[in-house]
Amino acid sequence: MTATLLRGGRPWGLGAPADILVEDGLIRRVGPALDAPAARLVDVSGRLVLPGLVEAHCHLDKTLYGGPWVPHSAGDSLAGRIGNDLARRAELGVPSVERIEALLRRMSAFGTTHVRTHTDIDPEAGLRGVEAVREAAGRVPVTVQQVAFPQHGVLTNPGTAELLEEALKSGVEAVGGLDPAGVDRDPVRHLDLIFGLAERYGAHLDIHLHDGGTLGAWELELITERTKALGLGGRVTVSHAYALGQLDDARQDRLAEGFAAAGVALATGAVYDFPVPPVKKMRAAGVVIACGHDGIRDLWGPYGSGDMLERAMHLAYRSTFRTDADIELALEAATYGGARALGLTGYGLSAGDRADLVVVPAAGAAEAVVTHPSRSLVMKDGSVLHN
Amino acid sequence: MTATLLRGGRPWGLGAPADILVEDGLIRRVGPALDAPAARLVDVSGRLVLPGLVEAHCHLDKTLYGGPWVPHSAGDSLAGRIGNDLARRAELGVPSVERIEALLRRMSAFGTTHVRTHTDIDPEAGLRGVEAVREAAGRVPVTVQQVAFPQHGVLTNPGTAELLEEALKSGVEAVGGLDPAGVDRDPVRHLDLIFGLAERYGAHLDIHLHDGGTLGAWELELITERTKALGLGGRVTVSHAYALGQLDDARQDRLAEGFAAAGVALATGAVYDFPVPPVKKMRAAGVVIACGHDGIRDLWGPYGSGDMLERAMHLAYRSTFRTDADIELALEAATYGGARALGLTGYGLSAGDRADLVVVPAAGAAEAVVTHPSRSLVMKDGSVLHN
Ligand SMILES: [Zn+2]
Ligand SMILES: [Zn+2]
Repeated sequence: MTATLLRGGRPWGLGAPADILVEDGLIRRVGPALDAPAARLVDVSGRLVLPGLVEAHCHLDKTLYGGPWVPHSAGDSLAGRIGNDLARRAELGVPSVERIEALLRRMSAFGTTHVRTHTDIDPEAGLRGVEAVREAAGRVPVTVQQVAFPQHGVLTNPGTAELLEEALKSGVEAVGGLDPAGVDRDPVRHLDLIFGLAERYGAHLDIHLHDGGTLGAWELELITERTKALGLGGRVTVSHAYALGQLDDARQDRLAEGFAAAGVALATGAVYDFPVPPVKKMRAAGVVIACGHDGIRDLWGPYGSGDMLERAMHLAYRSTFRTDADIELALEAATYGGARALGLTGYGLSAGDRADLVVVPAAGAAEAVVTHPSRSLVMKDGSVLHN
Repeated sequence: MTATLLRGGRPWGLGAPADILVEDGLIRRVGPALDAPAARLVDVSGRLVLPGLVEAHCHLDKTLYGGPWVPHSAGDSLAGRIGNDLARRAELGVPSVERIEALLRRMSAFGTTHVRTHTDIDPEAGLRGVEAVREAAGRVPVTVQQVAFPQHGVLTNPGTAELLEEALKSGVEAVGGLDPAGVDRDPVRHLDLIFGLAERYGAHLDIHLHDGGTLGAWELELITERTKALGLGGRVTVSHAYALGQLDDARQDRLAEGFAAAGVALATGAVYDFPVPPVKKMRAAGVVIACGHDGIRDLWGPYGSGDMLERAMHLAYRSTFRTDADIELALEAATYGGARALGLTGYGLSAGDRADLVVVPAAGAAEAVVTHPSRSLVMKDGSVLHN
């Protein structure tokens, strides 16, 4: 494989311009005025170089992306949206390998190199979603990690637990959960079941938690306790965690301390008007924060572009981040934070890291987030995909 | 002036494709297969045709748009932001005719044809902002309406009231207000003063109201009472009105009824994480809702693109609007609602209306808001500006 030399860019966090030499899919050297006569030269002078963007929470299997506009047809309740989703997915041909592929291609063009997606598992759909996502992922240079997601309940939906296990056996990397109290009605048994699966299969765990207020806070404690007891730190993520944005400072502080000590990460996309976890406080406590769109153009809602810089803008904006340092926290969530939540290794901008890069015309991280401009170049595993 | 025939577009709200014949700056005819042999033909087949977008609340005089990235330097408090703004505007050359012009050109390219902007008036700046905005507005085909805005208080800042009056005498179209209780410390005298000015000069009134909860709600009552008593219905707007999003349903209902009866409009941009007035409920009660960015790339915050379709997306998204009909309310705020708040006449897509149009590649209003795609064509007073 020919070497590539990115000339004159400003790698994020380095504070000075530096060339980046890429060979055999890896970053080999980073420094000023590198000499590599045999390398293909790509001029990125004055542009910001970021590690590949990480989409840490989406639902590829549900997407209608790339097709004609589909007016939203569900009611305003969660139960209404679940029912509508079930009723219309056959009619609309969901999951569709073509739609998933179209969305992944768009994500890749925006510089996303890694995706964690929650794939519906239920007795009706079986593992069809898992297979569709796998097939589409094989066609696009984006690394996709699936979560076997019990969208329609586990305990309340007999046969689902067995399918989650089957998905893990088939190679799915993570097991999901969904409002252990609010949806599945028995938080202790729900959590014991999915933690047990994660432990047995060496899988990651990523739990949708919409339950709010003190109920959600208590479930966050249950999750933290189990993560700690089972030594699953670094492999557990709570997605949304709306409750966190509704608690008083003292309770937020106690939970943050628990997450950091146990190794529980949070994934948020600052979606709609739902409460956003206090990102700055969580980061200060050492909690890993990841970022993702949640649904993109699907039966749950028509929004979403697939652009993780735009999504980081939503997170920064809803967090009322105005200074460069604060806004940078949102970009961190869309890069390093997501990489930690997904358990990626060799992620970053140092020699030896995988050459997954995105170059943007921006003076720095804050401008990249606020303006989320067209990407100048995207590189995945050392190959230039777009420039 | 040559006539122009827009062929095959789908005018918003008409439900069927129709041609639009434009002559002498006006829409002359709207209908299928119009015959106009002398007209210049522009093919907009299958595209959505909207009336010109209306930016109903921004601060052109403060903008740093078009220059290099300026890291945000203010603290998190309102007082801190006001102090930072005062301290740095000279250093950064604010107000700048060039920056304002750059932003207006961007807005125009996005299809905005009318702007209401709040221009700082205080003893230090005098009317310099008003003059800078006027000069920039003269260079760009966008109709700009200014609000003489007492950013640094009226009663608490001696000399400001006289300058507001001077601004109105010089032709400024509207007088502003700012947290009559929270900032200016005497809501009754503050409101009596600015309502008096509006009445004497036949001016519009547009009041920034950040005061929250029951205090803000009570000030909304004071504003409604005065609008009704003075017969200023249709000429009064409350901007932000965060309090509305914090009240219980019954109080929201009573206020909505009062606004509709008195003719008080609301302007909102769904900014940051601040509460958003309940748009759907307000519209159902007959209240006029307008939409605007608030600050765009200025010392108060680095966000904002100038694109009113994107801003409408923020409003729809924060309102958790998912159905086409709901999302359309946000587009209505960015068009007809803004036009009513600004007191525009001849605004719309009917024969006889001013030919201020924007064409977008979208199946309908909801898709235009959600995807806010590149504009296909922008027309102002019958002239094609961009296509
Ligand atoms: Zn989700
Ligand atoms: Zn404002």
